[in-house]
Amino acid sequence: MMQGKFITIEGSEGAGKSTNMCFVQDFLSSKNIEFISTREPGGTEISEKIRDLLLDKSNSSLCDDAELLLMFAARAQHLNELIKPTLAAGKWVISDRFTDASYAYQGGGRGLSWEKITQLEQWVQGSLRPDATILLDIPVDIGMQRVRERGEADRFEQEQLSFFNRIRDAYLRLAKENPKRFHIVDTQPAIEDVHKQMRTVMEMITDSVTL
Amino acid sequence: MMQGKFITIEGSEGAGKSTNMCFVQDFLSSKNIEFISTREPGGTEISEKIRDLLLDKSNSSLCDDAELLLMFAARAQHLNELIKPTLAAGKWVISDRFTDASYAYQGGGRGLSWEKITQLEQWVQGSLRPDATILLDIPVDIGMQRVRERGEADRFEQEQLSFFNRIRDAYLRLAKENPKRFHIVDTQPAIEDVHKQMRTVMEMITDSVTL
Repeated sequence: MMQGKFITIEGSEGAGKSTNMCFVQDFLSSKNIEFISTREPGGTEISEKIRDLLLDKSNSSLCDDAELLLMFAARAQHLNELIKPTLAAGKWVISDRFTDASYAYQGGGRGLSWEKITQLEQWVQGSLRPDATILLDIPVDIGMQRVRERGEADRFEQEQLSFFNRIRDAYLRLAKENPKRFHIVDTQPAIEDVHKQMRTVMEMITDSVTL
Repeated sequence: MMQGKFITIEGSEGAGKSTNMCFVQDFLSSKNIEFISTREPGGTEISEKIRDLLLDKSNSSLCDDAELLLMFAARAQHLNELIKPTLAAGKWVISDRFTDASYAYQGGGRGLSWEKITQLEQWVQGSLRPDATILLDIPVDIGMQRVRERGEADRFEQEQLSFFNRIRDAYLRLAKENPKRFHIVDTQPAIEDVHKQMRTVMEMITDSVTL
């Protein structure tokens, strides 16, 4: 059986991940592609418990190394219990965030060395990487305005503007370093325009023979 | 100010860690040595939450890599928030388990490569290692009998005999590879005999100028 494809959706706060996850799901359904949707940190019962630890505002003293190790613990469980078996069964996996988010948030945002993250990536994933990554990009001030309108912020969303600027810069650097895998979608325009970009990207991903 | 000493107590299930932790505390108090007692996984509020995840029997699907990463996430937090600041303040730290337990349980017990554990040890601890480690050693069948008498078992204590044999073997291997740091105490005899051994070991540790 052919291995399924692994597609990740990345973006900083307020970039429109939820809306565009729905778009991807509808698009794949219309093409009769079997898939599951999941998210990081999380995606399995145990990984969701780790997610709760990571997002809980009362854990404000969580140190950067522990945060990164928790992210990869949740990821190891997610890969072993859900992602790998699903891909092996020939289904696609669409994940709201994956390892690029560790580079962006813990590397860019927290300032941990990329080398440390690369070590853990290698350690946990071996050679497994997403087949395609959609980066939803938005200027930080506009994204944060959207988050504020959404209500109460979690432990990450409470960070300062400079933190989110470093995250956006890290995402754009990742896209530049992995041009084949990354597809950047500008989510600043009206929803119709964003969907037009998303449609183009998804056509590329599903048509591509190089995937 | 002189850095405090870092003493760890290790041993497999039923080896008598609780009783002998008390002995160590009483001994240090009698020498007017300032210390704190802590444990792994745990020792800080966040690390204790990670401990709950690790010991919870409902998390039976937790994969080996995730287990090891959670152990080191809890450890990173423990080191940064409690162990390092306490040692820097000149106090001793007595920990019920530390990284040797990862080698014994995840390496020996689960069969993860020692190289993986060494990588994480280096990653999280840098050059920090315990100044002395007391290994409480007991034949597995006797230790397990003691655990059963204690009542309900956690996620680790539910494992099979072969799992605990591999743990004991790993601990003895660690002791052999680190003869200066390790002090083995045979906890099979009567409590008076065990305390006699403990007293000898603690005299060595507190008297030692090489610490």
